[in-house]
Amino acid sequence: MRVLLVGAGGVGTAITRIAARRAFFDTMVVADYDPARAEAAVTALGDDGRFVADTVDAGDEAAVAALLARHRCDVLLNATDPRFVMPLFRAARTAGATYLDMAMSLSRPHPHRPYEECGVKLGDEQFTQAADWEKSGTLALVGMGVEPGLSDVFARYAADELFDDIEEIGIRDGADLTVDGYDFAPSFSIWTTIEECLNPPVVYEAGRGWFTTAPFSEPEVFDFPEGIGEVECVNVEHEEVLLVPRWIDARRVTFKYGLGREFVETLKTLHLLGLDRTDPVTVRSAGGPVAVSPRDVVAACLPDPATLGERMRGKTCAGTWVRGSKGGAPREVYLYHVVDNQWSMAEYGCQAVVWQTAVNPVVALELLAAGTWSGSGVLGPEAFPARPFLDLLTAYGSPWGMREQ
Amino acid sequence: MRVLLVGAGGVGTAITRIAARRAFFDTMVVADYDPARAEAAVTALGDDGRFVADTVDAGDEAAVAALLARHRCDVLLNATDPRFVMPLFRAARTAGATYLDMAMSLSRPHPHRPYEECGVKLGDEQFTQAADWEKSGTLALVGMGVEPGLSDVFARYAADELFDDIEEIGIRDGADLTVDGYDFAPSFSIWTTIEECLNPPVVYEAGRGWFTTAPFSEPEVFDFPEGIGEVECVNVEHEEVLLVPRWIDARRVTFKYGLGREFVETLKTLHLLGLDRTDPVTVRSAGGPVAVSPRDVVAACLPDPATLGERMRGKTCAGTWVRGSKGGAPREVYLYHVVDNQWSMAEYGCQAVVWQTAVNPVVALELLAAGTWSGSGVLGPEAFPARPFLDLLTAYGSPWGMREQ
Repeated sequence: MRVLLVGAGGVGTAITRIAARRAFFDTMVVADYDPARAEAAVTALGDDGRFVADTVDAGDEAAVAALLARHRCDVLLNATDPRFVMPLFRAARTAGATYLDMAMSLSRPHPHRPYEECGVKLGDEQFTQAADWEKSGTLALVGMGVEPGLSDVFARYAADELFDDIEEIGIRDGADLTVDGYDFAPSFSIWTTIEECLNPPVVYEAGRGWFTTAPFSEPEVFDFPEGIGEVECVNVEHEEVLLVPRWIDARRVTFKYGLGREFVETLKTLHLLGLDRTDPVTVRSAGGPVAVSPRDVVAACLPDPATLGERMRGKTCAGTWVRGSKGGAPREVYLYHVVDNQWSMAEYGCQAVVWQTAVNPVVALELLAAGTWSGSGVLGPEAFPARPFLDLLTAYGSPWGMREQ
Repeated sequence: MRVLLVGAGGVGTAITRIAARRAFFDTMVVADYDPARAEAAVTALGDDGRFVADTVDAGDEAAVAALLARHRCDVLLNATDPRFVMPLFRAARTAGATYLDMAMSLSRPHPHRPYEECGVKLGDEQFTQAADWEKSGTLALVGMGVEPGLSDVFARYAADELFDDIEEIGIRDGADLTVDGYDFAPSFSIWTTIEECLNPPVVYEAGRGWFTTAPFSEPEVFDFPEGIGEVECVNVEHEEVLLVPRWIDARRVTFKYGLGREFVETLKTLHLLGLDRTDPVTVRSAGGPVAVSPRDVVAACLPDPATLGERMRGKTCAGTWVRGSKGGAPREVYLYHVVDNQWSMAEYGCQAVVWQTAVNPVVALELLAAGTWSGSGVLGPEAFPARPFLDLLTAYGSPWGMREQ
């Protein structure tokens, strides 16, 4: 297997470090817009001869297709931000390569009823091209990070092995991470967090289909395992709600993010003041008036989460809560994966949230290389057998857990 | 009297409209950095031949002194933002003109104990030059808007006519203004509001002198008159606390601003995220990286308060609450001035907060022109007899009130 990894940010760099310990691939080309970032990721791996740094603009579809051809890559792994999903997805199709990403094409709210009906949904742009991928016998494995990704694998595992009938599948994400020396320091990209949290959250119900609610709806306190404890969670737009119902029977699918009360209030304030906007405003500067996106300014005022690993303490938990019945009796389980930042920093030099996102596409690549997972079309993680994935994840030194409720 | 008015923003424009109805002056030169703003203010007054538009950079001390000389002005009225206090104050001194402002030279927090001790206090830079003004027999009347300004006049009135002994003087400012069509739209410059509210609030106590507290300290609910009702008020850095104790005996002086709970939380969030900062951050733009001040971006995301008068409803109240004794009996009064936005828009085309600030320096100029008020040195409004001011304010059609508590 010859992989083109696009994006050498936090997650991309963690992918190289995890992959470097595995033998399943021949070459991994690490390409970034910033040549220094790609070089730094490759250099950090020492004398592993399988990694090559290169430069590419992820928004330039033709350049990406040419890079795939030049390095004879059969897989494109997208580790950039969601704005680049479509050019990378199309470039892989053009080059005949397998495609993987960890977030799907962006949504657009309903023009008149944004908090009641879906407009363009997450992944819609990708799924409209499914027939084309199927026809050519090529695979696009979409949403293959931790959430979406491992959370979808958990859903498939629950449907296959734990339940006869599923009432509700609820992804629940929470953490107790703190950053020394900062009163406020998100552990993940604030740009993406705003995008996720202020877009209308999507919910699925059998019979009704997908619909949206107001941001931060249905607050609930969820008790996370391994000492993290209770965190307030709210509905957030997330890929799992769009993926799970395509392959798994469940009467309701939700995603709730354990943002905590303070963070929710902070995001509401940013929205109230229009500081979440991405369209530019005109501001004075020493060199005269300039046009900047308020959301970029918010990001610039906060520390870069990729640099915070050393100062971070605590654990992050991703998981899937399932309620239904087995053998006629009601059952409720939470399937979860916890990463302790101290462990991921010591073991890989990567902060917990980034490492947890990165490990899953590497496991998936290894299953594809071995032929354990195979398919064609645009498929989510729940389209594949779950057990081999969970076993291989454990073999990577990062076991998952299950709590009967 | 020949007046140079520097600044043709909201307050400057309101000053011209109020002054145009009075006969006490011969000429008012309206100068602004933006020639169009000065022209617009003068043009709006029709055929009143006493007003002249001109252009000046308020930060250019020599240019301002030259402008005073060129127009033979004997008074400089500063209606710019507080960053320009010192160059304008010095320019007036150079030219031998009387100086008036509505906000004083800026403070700088104590380098080590910002929330316990004062560093450089509001007005310190001006008061250090008091001897020079006195020696030359020239007057700088500082803090002569509504707050500081009318609030200080109220304090003097209370000391002269209502009390034998004063325990506490507390300026209390509150409003019930709303802006149609906006969830969040401050009625005054957000830049200045952040400056006022996030600087360490200053408090005066006899024996202890001036000291600071943490922002938003000592929240209290104050009941404002004329239907405004209860508003949560918190300590804020304001000039009155520095002015009143210099001329009036009181055991405690405070300033509390009726920001309301939501606004306080909003300012706290801006501070938590570093969006109140004025030092530039580097942000991407279409034309490459640029350096902008986050606080300027916050201001750019919000509507310009000067343009909101038509959409605003409600009243604003400035006042001075005094507690002490008279004739051996305890007494407590609130002296106040309320402006209804509907009235100020109909009568002057100016929104309430801006009009209320602007009327007071015009009244003061008229008292100086008549010789009712006179003096030399750097003096606050409480250095002058209060009764003539309050009577003339009433004659301007804008009466004040008093509530015995």
